[in-house]
Amino acid sequence: MVGVSDDPVRPGSQAVRALQENGYPGAIYPVNPKYATFRGFKCHAALGAIDGDIDVAVIGIPSRGVRAVIEECVARKVKYAVILSGGFRETGADGAALQDEIVALARAGGMRIIGPNCLGLANISGNVYAAFGSITRPPKLRPGPVSLVTQSGGFGYSIALACAGGGIGFRNIVATGNEADVDAVELIDGLLEDDGTEIVLAYIEGVKDGRALLEAGRRALSAGKPLLVWKSGITEQGARAAASHTANMTGSYEFYRALFKQAGIIELREIHEAVDYVKALRAGKFPQGRRVAVMGGSGGSAIVFTDAAEQKGLRLAAFGSGTVNRLATVVPAIGSVSNPVDFTAGYIAAEGAEKFGVAVRAVLDDPNVDAVCVNFATIAGNPAHAGARALAEIAPTTGKPVVVFLSVPRTEAGEAWAVLDAARIPVFVSPVRAAKAIAMLEACRAAREKNRLVTPAAAGHEARAVSFPAETPVLSEVQSKMILSALGITVSRDHLVPVGGSFTKELPDAPLAVKIVSPDIPHKTDIGAVRLDVRGRPELERAIEEVLAAARAQADGARIDGVLVSEMVTDGFELLIGAVNDAIFGPVIVLSAGGIHAEVLGDRTCRLAPFDRETAREMIGELRCSALFCGLRGKPPLDVEALADALSILSRFAWRQRDAVREIDINPLFLRPRGQGVVAADALIVRGSCHARADGHPM
Amino acid sequence: MVGVSDDPVRPGSQAVRALQENGYPGAIYPVNPKYATFRGFKCHAALGAIDGDIDVAVIGIPSRGVRAVIEECVARKVKYAVILSGGFRETGADGAALQDEIVALARAGGMRIIGPNCLGLANISGNVYAAFGSITRPPKLRPGPVSLVTQSGGFGYSIALACAGGGIGFRNIVATGNEADVDAVELIDGLLEDDGTEIVLAYIEGVKDGRALLEAGRRALSAGKPLLVWKSGITEQGARAAASHTANMTGSYEFYRALFKQAGIIELREIHEAVDYVKALRAGKFPQGRRVAVMGGSGGSAIVFTDAAEQKGLRLAAFGSGTVNRLATVVPAIGSVSNPVDFTAGYIAAEGAEKFGVAVRAVLDDPNVDAVCVNFATIAGNPAHAGARALAEIAPTTGKPVVVFLSVPRTEAGEAWAVLDAARIPVFVSPVRAAKAIAMLEACRAAREKNRLVTPAAAGHEARAVSFPAETPVLSEVQSKMILSALGITVSRDHLVPVGGSFTKELPDAPLAVKIVSPDIPHKTDIGAVRLDVRGRPELERAIEEVLAAARAQADGARIDGVLVSEMVTDGFELLIGAVNDAIFGPVIVLSAGGIHAEVLGDRTCRLAPFDRETAREMIGELRCSALFCGLRGKPPLDVEALADALSILSRFAWRQRDAVREIDINPLFLRPRGQGVVAADALIVRGSCHARADGHPM
Repeated sequence: MVGVSDDPVRPGSQAVRALQENGYPGAIYPVNPKYATFRGFKCHAALGAIDGDIDVAVIGIPSRGVRAVIEECVARKVKYAVILSGGFRETGADGAALQDEIVALARAGGMRIIGPNCLGLANISGNVYAAFGSITRPPKLRPGPVSLVTQSGGFGYSIALACAGGGIGFRNIVATGNEADVDAVELIDGLLEDDGTEIVLAYIEGVKDGRALLEAGRRALSAGKPLLVWKSGITEQGARAAASHTANMTGSYEFYRALFKQAGIIELREIHEAVDYVKALRAGKFPQGRRVAVMGGSGGSAIVFTDAAEQKGLRLAAFGSGTVNRLATVVPAIGSVSNPVDFTAGYIAAEGAEKFGVAVRAVLDDPNVDAVCVNFATIAGNPAHAGARALAEIAPTTGKPVVVFLSVPRTEAGEAWAVLDAARIPVFVSPVRAAKAIAMLEACRAAREKNRLVTPAAAGHEARAVSFPAETPVLSEVQSKMILSALGITVSRDHLVPVGGSFTKELPDAPLAVKIVSPDIPHKTDIGAVRLDVRGRPELERAIEEVLAAARAQADGARIDGVLVSEMVTDGFELLIGAVNDAIFGPVIVLSAGGIHAEVLGDRTCRLAPFDRETAREMIGELRCSALFCGLRGKPPLDVEALADALSILSRFAWRQRDAVREIDINPLFLRPRGQGVVAADALIVRGSCHARADGHPM
Repeated sequence: MVGVSDDPVRPGSQAVRALQENGYPGAIYPVNPKYATFRGFKCHAALGAIDGDIDVAVIGIPSRGVRAVIEECVARKVKYAVILSGGFRETGADGAALQDEIVALARAGGMRIIGPNCLGLANISGNVYAAFGSITRPPKLRPGPVSLVTQSGGFGYSIALACAGGGIGFRNIVATGNEADVDAVELIDGLLEDDGTEIVLAYIEGVKDGRALLEAGRRALSAGKPLLVWKSGITEQGARAAASHTANMTGSYEFYRALFKQAGIIELREIHEAVDYVKALRAGKFPQGRRVAVMGGSGGSAIVFTDAAEQKGLRLAAFGSGTVNRLATVVPAIGSVSNPVDFTAGYIAAEGAEKFGVAVRAVLDDPNVDAVCVNFATIAGNPAHAGARALAEIAPTTGKPVVVFLSVPRTEAGEAWAVLDAARIPVFVSPVRAAKAIAMLEACRAAREKNRLVTPAAAGHEARAVSFPAETPVLSEVQSKMILSALGITVSRDHLVPVGGSFTKELPDAPLAVKIVSPDIPHKTDIGAVRLDVRGRPELERAIEEVLAAARAQADGARIDGVLVSEMVTDGFELLIGAVNDAIFGPVIVLSAGGIHAEVLGDRTCRLAPFDRETAREMIGELRCSALFCGLRGKPPLDVEALADALSILSRFAWRQRDAVREIDINPLFLRPRGQGVVAADALIVRGSCHARADGHPM
């Protein structure tokens, strides 16, 4: 511990005190040339003067002295350092240079660093405190299976405190600070491999490598260790606030959400969600579907649960007749033996816990039921205790989740709470939160199943090889469409009219679109070099002339390859699909409603490439306008499978060409009636690698 | 207290025990012919045998005996009864008949009844317990300014328990049961007049009279007493569950939400929202706008607050230069003096509470700031206590809301919590909840202001008088449009071609719509009696013939007034407006995106009629598609003011004609470019009074 002092607010002093007070069993070596001893330990003049093996160097001295300590560490072959001190990249250019120097030293010396500018890390079960601040203060966290990685010490520890209040124990807590070397994703990865960690919580403002987080999420699914992530900086103003706080770029929240879906990461948006979800996950039971039962003596609580369940995509199970008959033997006549089961107020007090147990078993035995919520609501005292005991007996005999809503605080229903806690039956203080927790468990189960069934990177669905035209940053519509065609995406029927030439074919029935073709004019509509709905030869000839004139007038000196005459699609739904090669996430495929909706109504979704048809179908279902695809008012249903194909083909191409393609826009893409596929009516491919904004932040 | 016994689970026994244990100062008269005394009180053989004044009769005997007790009450001129007993309408036809008899008796005798089948009522400050069950059990609620009305004893009391856990005190708690006589809305009204009640909470499954709730909400606004309502049964399955539980009809949630907006009722959707919002409201300070400041030592907490604030419609205030300069004198250089203010971790411990106080005052003094959130986050011990004291000193000197996020529990930061509680500074356990509470306060302020400025029922905007055609249930398009025209809503240019006649006018430039006109064919499109986009005389003549043939073939014997030839509007945005005369809410005006969007995309909103243009503008702004109305991509902006006019005209007409008109549909209504108004291209008015479903439930 480099940097101890009599001042108790110094980080180093706090770390030693925490180690000592929590009974850390290993050796502690305080370092400060001013002291002979510190809190009863021998104090060393320098790290090099320590006579013993050093597992980890904890550094809490002013930044200007840190470089020398790292040099000593390297000399002593210390493998790990936690730098608590601030004064590095977060303070400006000088601090950044100092941080870079230190990292370079460490890398050369085979040493890993956490921090600097962090609250540090604690291993609760091992009583290791390489930390200061709130992590080292009471209340002492109890040991348990949850590990936390946080890019904000203060807010991350707020999540930990709330979990502790809910009876949740911790394994490791790491505040990552500037992430000069080890970053949050690497820590998540490491914790997934830690035997003592069963659940990983993370608070992140931004990660450098979205793909690494995606892989971590998938590893979490395979390992059966839930990964719950709070991403902040998700609004415009939040991102701005984060930019001045974090060492990372916040990145597009839309892309994070896509990643969370693809990796089965459970997103947190409230502190109590962390508490509730960990409670629910700790029980280790997952529903096999969306059919829930709710039972209790409070009709209002059942209705509130049902509202929340439906809003979270669950539905009330329809009981089999056997269940109804069994319930009828124990539920009073004025109650209800269908779902919600209403056994009327005061049931356990009046009828006893035995009948209650029969009712719960009857519901759990029903194959139509995937999970059960028991509303204790305001039951307290002996009835609550007896009911809790009955549930505690039943819970180990079922693989289905059983959760409880209980609004009476621990102070008044302590026995019931204790029995339920011991039986790992999650208790929630609102029926809404109970419903949300069950929905989360079901989503978790579905994500694991999908992860088992689907090859992660859609392997075996390799994109067809295509060759790019000669080096040019922006491909023309004709060039772009040739590539799409080669991939297997149908494009509109086009005819290229060379400059000075004319349209020599027979006129088709469909109206025509007339567009300039130039590698120097990517946005041809903006300069008036597009004419739509052209009919008849005189109008076509005029349109060709006008388009050429507009291009010459507006884009002086642009290379012009000719004029494209395309047959317009008149029976399709207008969509937009594209690929963006993002600096953090790599290629991301975007699907959006087209036309006026694209820009203003924000009816769109995205996924990280590559992905399979199943994921593409999920995307399509997320568009609000997809409600129109099934064919309404006598219209034919649309070719959703062809759209799913096009999306997954595009995703594989964007992934394969991630070093060569920066952007793809297919706008519009027409989704036609079933059997007739999709048609790319316009397309643009931009070469290059990933996007980066002028300020160095990704788009 | 009619119905006491040695069995402690009997309602009557519980009520007497609660009165006694809580020190009720008035006389208690137990009634049961089997006992001479009960819990030390003289026990009476019958209510009639009581020697003394009876304020309220509390009845807890089996239902078959209740009628006789009510007769005794009437004879003794008892004014109020609380019937705890079940066995009435909730059990079926016999119970319903019994309930009706009792109510008739009471009405005749000038007596009011709460219940039956309820947990009863408690006045916490007066220690009156006409109740049983959880309301009478520990923890004893502390007296305070909040009253609660609930249609579910169990769930409503769960809300009260959560509030109690947050340090909130109560005045009256009433569980309304079957609402045979006094209902939830009447109780809300009464509590608004109660001097000891400052805030009213309500849990409702349904009300009989939506207009009464609307008026209660407006009275609450005028009285400056916040009304917070949880409406359940808001989903399809939730409503079904509620139908079997409540004596009331659940009604359309969409209409409830409109009512909540119009009446400034604060909607609750979670138990902790009740706690948080009451905490925030209790302080009695409201922001004058949406500009918030956030300050603290935890950067992460500030980002999370900012995300939530933006999502709830708040925005970070831009500080004046004076504020920045004052902050610079007390905030460390490595912190931030702009918003969010980051005074870095450990600030109060290192710099002292005095500097902290200067920083908070500087931000509060800034006229650009409407509310401040201070993130204590994980600060505990002395720094938290000192910070709390500084805030407690400042709070009384400002009219702006100051709220705190503190994640350290009361057990570890008890002094800070106590100081903040005493100073009425609301403390929230997450920054998200702090942001939501501020947004709620701002919405509350805006609703009060609007209520002050706007005459409640848009008085003085009386609809023009119109006369209906001769008695017919469904008005034809021509008749409906004549009425709309008379009201001042522009309709399309129409020409009626009589049967056997032909279109004799000059053909207009616009394409034509050709439609059958028949009072017996309200849905003419469905039977193929409409042709759109008709151009040229031969096509027009064919269309007229086809439409007549379709009407004759599909609607045999229908009276046919002719064929309507209308000039189609080609430059308008397609909308749908209408009026529904609902059994619970009366006339409600619906505005929806038209065409395919109307049915599938659910882009619509509504308000209870009548209302003014200001409310109409709010409605328009709630449509997702309204983002397109400002004129995109060179298109002209649309005539939103004309649409607001049409909506408020229609709302006044629907209100005035609420006994004569059951439904109005204007579909499509075209919203044209600014200055060109709106055009009703089709219309249908259905006579009658309010809607009722076949099962007696409202639509």
